[in-house]
Amino acid sequence: MTAKKNAFYAQSGGVTAVINASACGVIQTARKHRDRIGKVYAGRNGIIGALTEDMIDTSRESARAIAALRHTPGGAFGSARYKLKGLDENRAEYQRLIEVFKAHNIGYFFYNGGGDSADTCYKVSQLSKTMGFPVQAIHIPKTVDNDLPVTDNCPGFGSVAKYVAVSTREAAMDVASMARTSTKVFVLEVMGRHAGWIAASAGLAGSGPNEPPHIILFPEVPFNQPAFLRRVKRSVADHEYCVVVVSEGARYRDGRFLADAGTTDAFGHKQLGGVAQVVAQLVRDALGFKFHYAIADYLQRSARHIASATDAKQAYAVGKSAVELALAGHNSIMTTIVRKSDRPYRWSIGEAPLSRVANREKMMPKRYIRADGFGITAACRRYLAPLVRGEDYPPYTDGLPDYVTLKNVPVAKKLRTKFVL
Amino acid sequence: MTAKKNAFYAQSGGVTAVINASACGVIQTARKHRDRIGKVYAGRNGIIGALTEDMIDTSRESARAIAALRHTPGGAFGSARYKLKGLDENRAEYQRLIEVFKAHNIGYFFYNGGGDSADTCYKVSQLSKTMGFPVQAIHIPKTVDNDLPVTDNCPGFGSVAKYVAVSTREAAMDVASMARTSTKVFVLEVMGRHAGWIAASAGLAGSGPNEPPHIILFPEVPFNQPAFLRRVKRSVADHEYCVVVVSEGARYRDGRFLADAGTTDAFGHKQLGGVAQVVAQLVRDALGFKFHYAIADYLQRSARHIASATDAKQAYAVGKSAVELALAGHNSIMTTIVRKSDRPYRWSIGEAPLSRVANREKMMPKRYIRADGFGITAACRRYLAPLVRGEDYPPYTDGLPDYVTLKNVPVAKKLRTKFVL
Repeated sequence: MTAKKNAFYAQSGGVTAVINASACGVIQTARKHRDRIGKVYAGRNGIIGALTEDMIDTSRESARAIAALRHTPGGAFGSARYKLKGLDENRAEYQRLIEVFKAHNIGYFFYNGGGDSADTCYKVSQLSKTMGFPVQAIHIPKTVDNDLPVTDNCPGFGSVAKYVAVSTREAAMDVASMARTSTKVFVLEVMGRHAGWIAASAGLAGSGPNEPPHIILFPEVPFNQPAFLRRVKRSVADHEYCVVVVSEGARYRDGRFLADAGTTDAFGHKQLGGVAQVVAQLVRDALGFKFHYAIADYLQRSARHIASATDAKQAYAVGKSAVELALAGHNSIMTTIVRKSDRPYRWSIGEAPLSRVANREKMMPKRYIRADGFGITAACRRYLAPLVRGEDYPPYTDGLPDYVTLKNVPVAKKLRTKFVL
Repeated sequence: MTAKKNAFYAQSGGVTAVINASACGVIQTARKHRDRIGKVYAGRNGIIGALTEDMIDTSRESARAIAALRHTPGGAFGSARYKLKGLDENRAEYQRLIEVFKAHNIGYFFYNGGGDSADTCYKVSQLSKTMGFPVQAIHIPKTVDNDLPVTDNCPGFGSVAKYVAVSTREAAMDVASMARTSTKVFVLEVMGRHAGWIAASAGLAGSGPNEPPHIILFPEVPFNQPAFLRRVKRSVADHEYCVVVVSEGARYRDGRFLADAGTTDAFGHKQLGGVAQVVAQLVRDALGFKFHYAIADYLQRSARHIASATDAKQAYAVGKSAVELALAGHNSIMTTIVRKSDRPYRWSIGEAPLSRVANREKMMPKRYIRADGFGITAACRRYLAPLVRGEDYPPYTDGLPDYVTLKNVPVAKKLRTKFVL
């Protein structure tokens, strides 16, 4: 039996509709093991909270508040975009972490994030070996981009996917009603700078190329302007309208993003407009159709009101299992989601060594993109469908979702030194 | 007792998340009065369907399909932006309407739309008097803009308001988590070219100027750039971030829309970017903050998945009552929503003569906008709160809402003449 240690938990990178469900899984599970885990300290703004000894004492939160995390979007303790450098480049950061962990008797390090965070977690997990400080570091997967390797899917993605599929279906019905005398082309811009997973999920809104979305523009498929315009024209001819879903990462053959089309405003400033606008402008200039465009931006990844029940459940499970695996003595792993079967959808929680996870991106397989490049295949549909399944509505008061804001009571500092990032 | 007549129903102008609930109210109620009302013929694309004798026989739809309209967004029969000219300017259109109504034994005209449609409905209601053809024309209110007079609120608005309030609350939690190391300013663009009702509804997301949205930009308040930038700066200083909700109709003192800021792209084309982008660019140029922006566009008015239960109920009721009032012999009226009390919220269905409705817009009262111009007052909150209350979730299959697409079987044409619009 090891001595009782405190745990450190932090959220990293872009937040999601369900990252707090993972926090809920970690904290509730830790509270069930008070004999082994003392308190859970949350880093304010990810690893920055550890480096600056700026931590939150989650034991000061009621059971009710912690339970409410399960249905609250955003990052309850603040997130951050901050990547630890390698040990050789910045030994000071690692020494500081050890100093903080020692001062607060931290033996468990739970890091909830995407690819960059997995790398940070991996580096922390090496502290035992390289710097002789015993800490078990477990990574809890999270990313709307769905691009972590090994795990079948990433918590956070299923809810964005559901939001995008539902919104596409709804907006398409609106456009279809108006097309005769008004808008004929509707463009929805979604996230996914490197991989087209989110754009692909819009494909669930319809059953094939004759149902909206009529066109999906993936980052994986170099933008073919003539083919695109032909397809828009045909869709309007056949259906009176055309719904286009475009990934923010859509790009030309030479790698340039469509969003960086080089337009400038009247003052000569580089255009900030997104890809939706570029695509809409192309259509207007070439075909003259009236258009509208929407940019979902943060709405898509914070839309807890339409979260996928599968996603919320998995987000909780990867947090819960991280604590259980830590208690079982594991270090330097990420909890994963393992798909057992498509229909019926069955999954379980697994684990992967962080050495296999860090700094690897999972791209969409080619076989998930239709041969014409503008839609998804049956295989992709089979993969995506269970991830958006089930509704998991938050409670409402007076018409608005009842999200929790924690007290976030700081842990008293024990070190006299300040750390400058 | 009048002889049995058929009814004409059509949808006009921009559609909403609940306009089909009104259609459902009309058709289900008409079906209960088969002794008086024969069939309900829906115009394909609003009044255009009547003019071109392009009608849909709703009696060919199952009771189940009609019931599903209650939870289906968009316009099930197609809508249109088309305004009848005055009788003196275009007598041919009115003669054609009479021709079509006579051919199909239509004695009831139900028109579901906003201000322009109320005008069309008013003109049709005058056919009895001016052209000696007996038809009872009843207008069913619908508009996300909430700008129809007499009625306390407009079906369609409550659901957009709920969408905007929920989305603002959610996105704000996302931004708050990221602000330390990433996005500090988030701008959400919402609809409302003339009136700030939709922008105002974002105010429900927080309880005052210290909670997001920190700034609302209304069309009613001339844009004061220095005051706006000071407020953004203060919000970031006080809260680390700033959430701005801007109406597409936000404008300068001289009446120019912010969205028409006169920017052009590299080819000299007029910029198509919306106001969100203009506002974000201002903030970047003046204060240098990292920002994100979202444009809700059609997503906001088609978001049946997060419809307000109050709104869905009222949308049904104004359709149902329109039929009942027609059967009671009324002509040239609009069904209205009458507020009896705020707390508890009580309402009933009333009626207003179309002569009092047509061509009048209801603007936001000044007392609904905070003295500083950047937020809503307690009076506004009291008005808006009940309209977003209650959830009315559609059924789901495999993670996606189960919206109905009708068969839309055409009514056989009886006229040999074609009408050119």
